[in-house]
Amino acid sequence: MKHPIKIALLGSGTVGTGVVRVLKENAHEIEQKVGMPVEIKTVLVRDIHKKRPYLEGLQLTDDMDSILRDDDISIVIELMGGIHPAREYMLAAMQAGKHVVTANKDVVAQFGRDMFEMAEQRQVEFLFEASVGGGIPIVTPLKECLTANRITEVMGIVNGTTNYMLTKMTQGGSDYAAVLKEAQEKGYAEADPAADVGGLDAARKAAILASLAFNTRVGLENVSVEGITHITPEDIVYARELGYVIKLLAIARDLGGQGVDVRVHPSFLPVGHPLAAVSDVYNAIFIKGNAIGEAMFYGRGAGALPTASAVIADIVAVARGLVKGNAQGIGCTCFEKKPICPLEDTVSAYYIRLLVADQPGVLGAIATTFGEQDVSLNSVIQTRRVGSQAEIVVVTHQVQHKKILQAEQCLTQLPVVSKISNVIRVETAAEGKV
Amino acid sequence: MKHPIKIALLGSGTVGTGVVRVLKENAHEIEQKVGMPVEIKTVLVRDIHKKRPYLEGLQLTDDMDSILRDDDISIVIELMGGIHPAREYMLAAMQAGKHVVTANKDVVAQFGRDMFEMAEQRQVEFLFEASVGGGIPIVTPLKECLTANRITEVMGIVNGTTNYMLTKMTQGGSDYAAVLKEAQEKGYAEADPAADVGGLDAARKAAILASLAFNTRVGLENVSVEGITHITPEDIVYARELGYVIKLLAIARDLGGQGVDVRVHPSFLPVGHPLAAVSDVYNAIFIKGNAIGEAMFYGRGAGALPTASAVIADIVAVARGLVKGNAQGIGCTCFEKKPICPLEDTVSAYYIRLLVADQPGVLGAIATTFGEQDVSLNSVIQTRRVGSQAEIVVVTHQVQHKKILQAEQCLTQLPVVSKISNVIRVETAAEGKV
Repeated sequence: MKHPIKIALLGSGTVGTGVVRVLKENAHEIEQKVGMPVEIKTVLVRDIHKKRPYLEGLQLTDDMDSILRDDDISIVIELMGGIHPAREYMLAAMQAGKHVVTANKDVVAQFGRDMFEMAEQRQVEFLFEASVGGGIPIVTPLKECLTANRITEVMGIVNGTTNYMLTKMTQGGSDYAAVLKEAQEKGYAEADPAADVGGLDAARKAAILASLAFNTRVGLENVSVEGITHITPEDIVYARELGYVIKLLAIARDLGGQGVDVRVHPSFLPVGHPLAAVSDVYNAIFIKGNAIGEAMFYGRGAGALPTASAVIADIVAVARGLVKGNAQGIGCTCFEKKPICPLEDTVSAYYIRLLVADQPGVLGAIATTFGEQDVSLNSVIQTRRVGSQAEIVVVTHQVQHKKILQAEQCLTQLPVVSKISNVIRVETAAEGKV
Repeated sequence: MKHPIKIALLGSGTVGTGVVRVLKENAHEIEQKVGMPVEIKTVLVRDIHKKRPYLEGLQLTDDMDSILRDDDISIVIELMGGIHPAREYMLAAMQAGKHVVTANKDVVAQFGRDMFEMAEQRQVEFLFEASVGGGIPIVTPLKECLTANRITEVMGIVNGTTNYMLTKMTQGGSDYAAVLKEAQEKGYAEADPAADVGGLDAARKAAILASLAFNTRVGLENVSVEGITHITPEDIVYARELGYVIKLLAIARDLGGQGVDVRVHPSFLPVGHPLAAVSDVYNAIFIKGNAIGEAMFYGRGAGALPTASAVIADIVAVARGLVKGNAQGIGCTCFEKKPICPLEDTVSAYYIRLLVADQPGVLGAIATTFGEQDVSLNSVIQTRRVGSQAEIVVVTHQVQHKKILQAEQCLTQLPVVSKISNVIRVETAAEGKV
């Protein structure tokens, strides 16, 4: 019998359970692919006395040191989530010469540099496929399959909760509060949905994707974030009328001399864009490179088994290296130091919905104000009456963010404008169409 | 200065030119990713006196032996296409201890075993990402990223020519001959389009995908092939009315005990299926695995630069291994010996279009005949008059192929049936819906 490769699992939540289950169910296939059995030996849990039928036969411990001291264990899988103590445990595991596989987007997005430095220093692997896009292979494709390319754009639907909510708002016309409640009932949104609906979860993934795509370190602090809480059924209807769907997008662009532009916000996306058809809890990442042209990776962005699929792919990669006696793998790929483009200098088209006095000359006054602020308009639509007032929808051409901010300020000072109801970025066909 | 990794390129056609161009344009990025410059040293051409401005500065030769003898060259890139002499040259290169990267689906689908055996024997790499899906990363994802999964289904649009033609027929209502002419004028179809429209090109890719997905050797001879030449505008209209689009699909299913079912044929695909929106010359590969659920990989399936993207990804993989001094990579992944499910035992739903006498009782006679042959019908639609006759469209439930063949035979013997106009497989929602 061959000597198995032994693993310690930190955390026994949903994904941990998925990893245990898939490693067991597909043990035969995985052993063939690795050339040796791969087994979980120890699971780090908070309370070793709690009954966990799905962990039967595995050694439970609440003592991380016992894992660090166990020379039998060559790979540590971190599935605890959050920064502390996950970060410290992973560093300690690498310090102890163990390879680390994680699904922890928080740590990778905020402390990726520390992780890679430790991995490099101790000559171990630090792999994190499951931190972005759940089951979708995207980290390995960026590190290995698209290496011929200078990647110029990564655009992703990387948060299943908000994509589910926007899909339901688009299909059913319900408002934000109603779809949030529905998502919570179905288990697609957490009791505290702030990180999802506020865009923070997507921002962490945007930071990871941008770092990989542009080979430069992009941290969470470099990502401009805006959530979906202000999206209304009215905006969704206007989007449809104009030929768009509203999606929460993680957008990363390498602008060359102007630096790297990384943001998360709701966007009008042309209905013909490959990402526009990505519905419900599905995720997808769309990439532009100077050799491949456009490519897209689509699948389930969350869930126990899809995430386990990504975690185990990393385990297999490490295990294959152990079997072959290969040196450390690719490691950190942030070779460059590209500047971050400040938010106010980023460029986009914008949809602006205003509530104005219903009287002659209003359209002219508004258009003039935009013109004075150097904002060129693509279309102005006077749409409907709201009580004694009128709603106007404006779509701009490409313009710097700071000019939109200035225009907003001037508009609110116009006596005929009672309210700027919403401002949402628009991905124009020229930017995103395939 | 670092010692560069040197390459010989066999063939200087479209893809070869693309590889030269991308290696030059992205030299800086590629050097960083590899840790060493990567340079083409020699190009094998038929006529060394022919002027080739895009190969300026490179050493041209018409003597393969000089490449084999050149110890400076560690990687040979085969882009000649066809079986001979590509197969012999690749074997000779590996015999001489050189790593081989190829885009040659013909050789991989028909002589993959020989290639892997030689690679194993000589401890060199044999990589072929560009042989399926052009620029789309699919070989590496199957070998490395989906290793946690027992893959049950691979369904792909893997031929750009036919997807372009079917897209145009669907959008414009033109007939087969007209769209073929248009595709030829645009350079999307060759002067002799037989391998594309007859399904042979897709069949080679199906064999490669099935081998990778199911870890068992599937050769071209194991793939049932049917092209698109019999698809008419009428079929496309009926498909739309029934909620489908017609696509040329490469379908591979691991049926467990019944073996592996691999076929290429036109199919009715539900409009909601992720592959249904893949238009024009784009390709996509849709995968089902027992951990990941569904995933899809989308991009350009052909063209100089996308294919170069895949070829260079393989070059970078080999070069990284050389720099790190790693042992040979993953190698052949066909660990299993799964039987091939005979075509007559494969199961599908079918669309059957018939020309019948326009008289009472015909529908009953036809339905009875299907019933006698154990073919259960999902829907029967009497659709329109064609001269003095009537057209009937039948969609069956899931049924074995041999039963459809028997039913066809019995139907043609019915006096009221003048013609079976077409028989096309239907991917039902249960099979393909996400």
